Amino acid sequence: MPTREQLAEWDAADPLAACRARFDLPTDVIYLDGNSLGPLPHAVKASLRRTVEVEWARGLITSWNRHQWVDLPEIVGGKIARLIGAEADEVVAADSTSINLFKLIAGALALRSDRRVIVSVVDNFPTDLYVAGGLIQLLGQGHELRLVPVDALPAAIDPSVALVMLTEVDYRTGARHDMAAITAAAHAAGALMLWDLAHSAGAFPVALNAADVDLAVGCGYKFLNGGPGAPAFLFVAKRHQADFHPALTGWFGHAEPFAFAPGYTPANGIRRMLCGTPSVLALAALDAALDAFADIDLDLVREKSVRLADAFISLVESHCGSFDLRLASPRDTPRRGSQVSFRHEQAYPIMQALIARGVIGDVRTPDILRFGLAPLYLRFTDMWDAAMVLQDVLEREDWRRPEHQTRAKVI
Amino acid sequence: MPTREQLAEWDAADPLAACRARFDLPTDVIYLDGNSLGPLPHAVKASLRRTVEVEWARGLITSWNRHQWVDLPEIVGGKIARLIGAEADEVVAADSTSINLFKLIAGALALRSDRRVIVSVVDNFPTDLYVAGGLIQLLGQGHELRLVPVDALPAAIDPSVALVMLTEVDYRTGARHDMAAITAAAHAAGALMLWDLAHSAGAFPVALNAADVDLAVGCGYKFLNGGPGAPAFLFVAKRHQADFHPALTGWFGHAEPFAFAPGYTPANGIRRMLCGTPSVLALAALDAALDAFADIDLDLVREKSVRLADAFISLVESHCGSFDLRLASPRDTPRRGSQVSFRHEQAYPIMQALIARGVIGDVRTPDILRFGLAPLYLRFTDMWDAAMVLQDVLEREDWRRPEHQTRAKVI
Repeated sequence: MPTREQLAEWDAADPLAACRARFDLPTDVIYLDGNSLGPLPHAVKASLRRTVEVEWARGLITSWNRHQWVDLPEIVGGKIARLIGAEADEVVAADSTSINLFKLIAGALALRSDRRVIVSVVDNFPTDLYVAGGLIQLLGQGHELRLVPVDALPAAIDPSVALVMLTEVDYRTGARHDMAAITAAAHAAGALMLWDLAHSAGAFPVALNAADVDLAVGCGYKFLNGGPGAPAFLFVAKRHQADFHPALTGWFGHAEPFAFAPGYTPANGIRRMLCGTPSVLALAALDAALDAFADIDLDLVREKSVRLADAFISLVESHCGSFDLRLASPRDTPRRGSQVSFRHEQAYPIMQALIARGVIGDVRTPDILRFGLAPLYLRFTDMWDAAMVLQDVLEREDWRRPEHQTRAKVI
Repeated sequence: MPTREQLAEWDAADPLAACRARFDLPTDVIYLDGNSLGPLPHAVKASLRRTVEVEWARGLITSWNRHQWVDLPEIVGGKIARLIGAEADEVVAADSTSINLFKLIAGALALRSDRRVIVSVVDNFPTDLYVAGGLIQLLGQGHELRLVPVDALPAAIDPSVALVMLTEVDYRTGARHDMAAITAAAHAAGALMLWDLAHSAGAFPVALNAADVDLAVGCGYKFLNGGPGAPAFLFVAKRHQADFHPALTGWFGHAEPFAFAPGYTPANGIRRMLCGTPSVLALAALDAALDAFADIDLDLVREKSVRLADAFISLVESHCGSFDLRLASPRDTPRRGSQVSFRHEQAYPIMQALIARGVIGDVRTPDILRFGLAPLYLRFTDMWDAAMVLQDVLEREDWRRPEHQTRAKVI
């Protein structure tokens, strides 16, 4: 177990330490919820001001061309591509993760039209399952959403399966799937593989093409720090693009949107995956946020993430071990994303008490305390300080106070 | 035909004249393209700064509750409802117009599952047709998208029709449908009626419930001035909400999004029409933009729109009549939205020459010069000044210059 002095030495030697200055963080907060909403990168402020006060106000309609608004989904997609092991022309940013999932699942089922099964795990992030379920109901063609526990996954991937759809990192426990192995298993059964990178992109290097992944989606507002409700992204491997039918066919995905032809002809390449007019303000914010990653080696990000997590786990277990906290995340480093979760019966009021003391994480039903570890702006000493506040909250039983028991809509 | 002095008197007496100060307009521009992208309302700047620098940067994840981010789609929807003759709980703002159309068309076909025809007009805005076509292809159930000329519309609405889908104001000519009459004809045939209010909302009073309309969508970035790619809105009449199946089923439309249940249960009411996490930045901009309408009588907006248009038509026809410009918009006032269009073989270079002289409109294929008339910030004298620049461009044949012939992606 490291001492605070040792952790301070790690900070002093941290090659990513300078990145913290790229973020506008409150001084009285340890922010361990960047896996839910990343903090504000300073660069976003200037970018939004320029987009609004110069490009929109002065350029008006002409900025669609003059300031390349029309290309923003691809420009931003290209920046994300580098973080997830894809080519620039395999990724676009637009719409929400849920909407992008719909496009990809619908397109995947069309590519495997002789099969009727979508496989996922029961613990997948719910919106992914809702989207698949809604599509199945809409199609009315007898598709099955086969939800299994993680251990039953290999057996569930049989030749009836059109698509395997998984979130790489479990949103509750932070457990990480083996992307290459599961993708290979899907392909061996003749199925396509779709990964949801919500808790992956920006948190560690992802290697979509190295793993031969077919399809992926991800979130702009977690580890990519694009702001609340930032545009999501989607990936379609180049080999599928020419045959991919975007079920959501809007004018931004048209080969010639400004020809205003009555019939739909999809654009070549990844652009066909666009639908309606994307939000330029939201894309401009995400675009500037991504510049925080421009010179970053993601292997260093992963290495720091692992050390942050290992330190936090050992500190919490040694200081708070007597208070019925149980590690919910895998202890085994390669099987973990960039978050650490603990279970406790009183997870909700404990987190409220932590937040009141400036340590911000969140909870997930029924009993998960979730701490996201974003290496670009967290310090090793933050792990110490957060663990000490947690110990204090548990010792004093701060969480019993009535104000910490009141349920809010979110968190 | 009014003189410039008369028009200046109209401006002096205009009850909406003071609204112009609510917008950040370039001083050297007459902006006649607010039907494509509205200008920046001053209030948006402060709202975005607060949302980004206070709510996001300081409040971080807690702002979803503390600053009501989670309710923004309904808050913004409620403000739009007043402009379109709907109840506050019948409208939400989120996603794009195309995505919202998909939700409504899919839900409408489910409500009329014994019918297979969608009727629209050949000149409808293309993305609406692309969305319907994509859905029909996805369903593979033999639905027909029946596209007819406007005059053939009454005959096309027969008992096989599930849905009539029209854009109230034609994006090329500005011709306006009779909402009440066509809605009644759809209902008489047992069909549902969906109106696209892209060029209506904020341009004149719309009376959805008075016309007994079932479904509607609209755009946030045209006459509502919400910024490039602003969130769109959708309307579902209260009588349909409980039975309406949103085909795009994401967690923001779930009855209990933060219960993270594996199964989808739609929220009560209009909130079920949400799908993924909406962009808070884009909604905050639209929210502030709508405040420009808060104290506005839309009957005054319509009255001024008609006078602007009548003045512009008479000025252009008298000053430019010898140059082969032909009015493409209806001369009959009630049949016109809030734009005036002219046809000319050289529409594209003429518009480029106008833009170079500070008169910004746009063109639509093949030969339409389009001038949007937004009564909140335009002056009657702008009509004079724009017509004079147009006359000069035509007289000098400015449009023949090579730089005006180059085609850009947009406009």
